[in-house]
Amino acid sequence: MDIESISKKEHVEKERLKEEAEDYYIEKSKELRLKDLTRFKKYFPEPSENMKKDIAFAHKDIDKIATAIVSKKPWAVVSGLNPSGPLHFGHKTIFDELLWLQKHGAEIFIPLTNDESYIVDKTKTLAESRKIAYESVMPSIIAMGFDPEKTHIFVDSDYPDIYNVAMQLSKQLKISKIRSLFGFKDSDNVGSLFYRGAVQVSQILLPQYIEFNGPIITLIPIGIDQHPYILLARDIAKKNDMLPPAELIMKFLPGLLGAGGKMSASIKGSSIFLTDDIKEAKDKIKKAYTGGIMSSKYQKELGGVPEVCSIFLLQKYHFLNQEEAEELNIKCRSGLVLCSECKKCTNVFVENYLKDHKEKFEKAKTEIPKFLLKKRITSILE
Amino acid sequence: MDIESISKKEHVEKERLKEEAEDYYIEKSKELRLKDLTRFKKYFPEPSENMKKDIAFAHKDIDKIATAIVSKKPWAVVSGLNPSGPLHFGHKTIFDELLWLQKHGAEIFIPLTNDESYIVDKTKTLAESRKIAYESVMPSIIAMGFDPEKTHIFVDSDYPDIYNVAMQLSKQLKISKIRSLFGFKDSDNVGSLFYRGAVQVSQILLPQYIEFNGPIITLIPIGIDQHPYILLARDIAKKNDMLPPAELIMKFLPGLLGAGGKMSASIKGSSIFLTDDIKEAKDKIKKAYTGGIMSSKYQKELGGVPEVCSIFLLQKYHFLNQEEAEELNIKCRSGLVLCSECKKCTNVFVENYLKDHKEKFEKAKTEIPKFLLKKRITSILE
Repeated sequence: MDIESISKKEHVEKERLKEEAEDYYIEKSKELRLKDLTRFKKYFPEPSENMKKDIAFAHKDIDKIATAIVSKKPWAVVSGLNPSGPLHFGHKTIFDELLWLQKHGAEIFIPLTNDESYIVDKTKTLAESRKIAYESVMPSIIAMGFDPEKTHIFVDSDYPDIYNVAMQLSKQLKISKIRSLFGFKDSDNVGSLFYRGAVQVSQILLPQYIEFNGPIITLIPIGIDQHPYILLARDIAKKNDMLPPAELIMKFLPGLLGAGGKMSASIKGSSIFLTDDIKEAKDKIKKAYTGGIMSSKYQKELGGVPEVCSIFLLQKYHFLNQEEAEELNIKCRSGLVLCSECKKCTNVFVENYLKDHKEKFEKAKTEIPKFLLKKRITSILE
Repeated sequence: MDIESISKKEHVEKERLKEEAEDYYIEKSKELRLKDLTRFKKYFPEPSENMKKDIAFAHKDIDKIATAIVSKKPWAVVSGLNPSGPLHFGHKTIFDELLWLQKHGAEIFIPLTNDESYIVDKTKTLAESRKIAYESVMPSIIAMGFDPEKTHIFVDSDYPDIYNVAMQLSKQLKISKIRSLFGFKDSDNVGSLFYRGAVQVSQILLPQYIEFNGPIITLIPIGIDQHPYILLARDIAKKNDMLPPAELIMKFLPGLLGAGGKMSASIKGSSIFLTDDIKEAKDKIKKAYTGGIMSSKYQKELGGVPEVCSIFLLQKYHFLNQEEAEELNIKCRSGLVLCSECKKCTNVFVENYLKDHKEKFEKAKTEIPKFLLKKRITSILE
């Protein structure tokens, strides 16, 4: 084949991948009966950047959150992660959303689930994941600018009330239900079943307890793959006079290696960590998968496919507002901007961010105690 | 049928029940490959009363305990219960053994598993079982005369390190293993699976942690039905450079209602509680199942069957030494003592015990703090 044919083939393949990615979210939303966010954006005083850019795109019950915001009623957000390495730009998407939610009144709970990291084999010990939580994840979160008065971070093994809640709720969580929602094999360990079946639900429902002014309207921002946990939590909430949590579904930031994978700490080279060296980050950007094709001559003619481009998406998710992202999209599609130029731009954005984050990160380390959840859940024991 | 035939039939039936009960322990010990205690009694400085009376009758690895006693090495005992009501004389059997073990050097750990009570539906809430633990079970245990320096009591929901240990060990506990040892149905809740599969093992292995001078030789005195937990704990111990726990199997004290049931708080009228009113206790004794028969004329002729008599066994387990129990056995068998006389005697024994216990119980309430396990398990998190 000649270069022209190869280039066209390459371009067509990327267009196909774009369709596939878009279809995935459309199909999945239909299947799970999630609602489109579009018509709700207007209820918010000002939709979040993620909402405007269609990164936050589907929901369940978010109208209740909009009502709480407008009527200035208290409401809560729970959003955590299992610490197995530094935070990356994929995590930052969610935390940006949390910052917006906090600005509009949310009390935010952030469980750092070292038990999960260990039990699903992301770390070798509970201690290893716990260390990562305190030394890397927490400072990065705090560095992003959360309000210590309204942000409550906890590590599962250091906030064991979560297990009392899990034990309490687990009486209503039948093995058959967990099996139908998540499946499990007999070769799985009992810890992972208990984690998925009870501890996770307990975290989602934590604000429902009287110690945290529950029952209270709660929003859980999550990836679409975690929807079954919300279903389970809503089910348990209804059985316990709690308010069923609302959910806001966010699209994953794709990893730098392309092929549809999300940015993930466990796939080498797929992520730029918030604590990466500038040099390291630039090297990853250099190797990153794009929506362009081999031949710059034909790319000028055919254009790129920004929707599958890890570099375009990194910019869109983190460094451009809606209009800027649309403008870059058009420029790329029309072949006016090529990948090398776009990567140069990204280098500058990322370098500035990492420098700034590094400074704030060091200061944040000393602020951890202000953010740790201290209030015990005693009501279930009295 | 005439009275003579009825009486003979009744007597033969009780002899059959005696055989059945004895066969149960013999068969079960063989099946589980437990060792007979007889040849080990001689290694102990002085066997416990329960050993002498064949109430403690089988074991695994108890020679290691004998060695520790003789060589004055440290060793530990774990023995707990799920609080759902006051302690009864069935519990007292185990605690008597614990007192003997403590006298010979054991550091004693007593988990009061309110999570278990709740999860298996013996209480309606975690709080209810927790309240019973502090207000009834702990004072009764302390009243029996344990040494606060060497006795560590904890309620699961107030000593949540147990869940960190459970999470840690659970990674090695496969669902398939738990299923083969205990079975479970899909309609069971996930909490009970986690409890049986991980929390229970964590309690048994608690002394193995460095905070409690582990790895250390440990003995678990239990009923024969709990043997699978020991198997599981021994298996996990071997995988973690811990010392596999030894076990001492104790025969159940049968309930007052006869028919082979053990004394159990959940079967009304089967137990005399250590906190019963004298009147209440006497009333239960009056109605208690015995080894005698309806006609006293023929009982004098045929004799009783003390081995199935709840009254004889209550005396044997708690108020008679080995010689006295043998003497009463012979008297009963030869028809020299009838049930009414024996019950009168039991009334006196029980009345004296309950009076004494009541006094000590009130004092014990104030001593709880001295017995609570305070040391945290931090080594698994560092």
